[in-house]
Amino acid sequence: ALTEAKRWCAARAVTSSKEDGFSYVPELKAELVDPDAAYVHITANNTIYGTMYREIPQNLPAPLACDMSSIILGKQFDVRDFGLIYAGAQKNMGPAGLTVVIVRRDLIPDDVDSVVPSMLQYKSFADSGSMYNTPPCYSIYIAGLVYEHIEREGGVAEFERRNRKKAELLYDCIDNSDFFGGTALFQDRSIMNVTFTLANAEQTDDFVAFAKARGIIGIKGHRAVGGCRASIYNAMPQSGVEALVECMKEYESKKA
Amino acid sequence: ALTEAKRWCAARAVTSSKEDGFSYVPELKAELVDPDAAYVHITANNTIYGTMYREIPQNLPAPLACDMSSIILGKQFDVRDFGLIYAGAQKNMGPAGLTVVIVRRDLIPDDVDSVVPSMLQYKSFADSGSMYNTPPCYSIYIAGLVYEHIEREGGVAEFERRNRKKAELLYDCIDNSDFFGGTALFQDRSIMNVTFTLANAEQTDDFVAFAKARGIIGIKGHRAVGGCRASIYNAMPQSGVEALVECMKEYESKKA
Repeated sequence: ALTEAKRWCAARAVTSSKEDGFSYVPELKAELVDPDAAYVHITANNTIYGTMYREIPQNLPAPLACDMSSIILGKQFDVRDFGLIYAGAQKNMGPAGLTVVIVRRDLIPDDVDSVVPSMLQYKSFADSGSMYNTPPCYSIYIAGLVYEHIEREGGVAEFERRNRKKAELLYDCIDNSDFFGGTALFQDRSIMNVTFTLANAEQTDDFVAFAKARGIIGIKGHRAVGGCRASIYNAMPQSGVEALVECMKEYESKKA
Repeated sequence: ALTEAKRWCAARAVTSSKEDGFSYVPELKAELVDPDAAYVHITANNTIYGTMYREIPQNLPAPLACDMSSIILGKQFDVRDFGLIYAGAQKNMGPAGLTVVIVRRDLIPDDVDSVVPSMLQYKSFADSGSMYNTPPCYSIYIAGLVYEHIEREGGVAEFERRNRKKAELLYDCIDNSDFFGGTALFQDRSIMNVTFTLANAEQTDDFVAFAKARGIIGIKGHRAVGGCRASIYNAMPQSGVEALVECMKEYESKKA
């Protein structure tokens, strides 16, 4: 988001935990923000480093824009805290190829003969019932079924409860282990992506293979950071997390 | 395409059949094109007016960019005639939400810190095996199955043969009717979208309802032009066109 914004304006990171390996969410204080800023951008949940905003920053001098791709429908938010929310569907909503945008009407700019392509203007979609072009019908249809499923199961509140329970189980396992260790600071830990490392990093591939033999796949960390990562989005049941915890305990007892 | 290009440069329509209701494809002569033009854009098949390029313009002074959305895989083309081809998947390839681009490597610009978003730079996708972002996996998967199906059935040549046969049947019906009439000039008629009108335009809705009662849907013309339109993309079998022709004959004999 920062790289793209820099193409257009004097965008800057007002704060960062880069020097600490992005292991925590730095506090976004209002005084850090330029009073003339058009917007402030955050990413609600970081899938790579396994961190998330526990609380949404308040009282900022500019509207808050939020990439909510990896936590939308996985945790309750108050939409009134945001000027704009955008989220790719592919984590908690449906097939990749669909993006949901929730934007305050007063923040939608007019098309003033700008160089912004029509397809990238929120106005194009706001004015046409989100059907400015042929929409990705199948992804929308499946997302609709997912929304109905979530409502039937008790809504986002219920999925947040389940997600917290799943994350707690996994973090408990990590915290009580001498072999596995978490990478994110305790209070900023994500309830969607649980990142952890092995005391002996060279055993990572062996552990991934060990898990795979037990039917557990996709736990290798992002190539940018290594280690392991368990993505426990809405679709992952409690039993899937329980199986991973059992697998970790077994590995630790046999190979640590 | 013209409207969007105008945001960026001095784009203009070098020729048009607008004054004749877009009923034919005007000849694209090389001398019409500015010798300094960056590219020339055509749309191979016009879904609204039911016209198509019989022959792709040759010897132009600039690379040819082509919107092939509604005829790709429905008719054979020589990719060497084009600098860039782009096509939405939703006609002949697969579910909406996927766009295929075939571009000459030497026409892909470097990113020179421009205001062009990374997602709109062909370079982003060329450099990353078309996986710069999370791709629309399901649409790609289905498109792959469609490609395999087309190959098994005899390739694009076979589908062009079938499409020409379907279109011929429908145009024959229109040409031999005193009640139905084609809207596109004979030699530029599309083999994908057959547009026609009724001698008494006020009967159009009645005819559409008459067809619907016989299981034939989606034949109402585009809201911009009225009349009727039969879209006979690759997925439409010969029997579907035969049913429409029978329906038209029946309507004419009973209600004309």
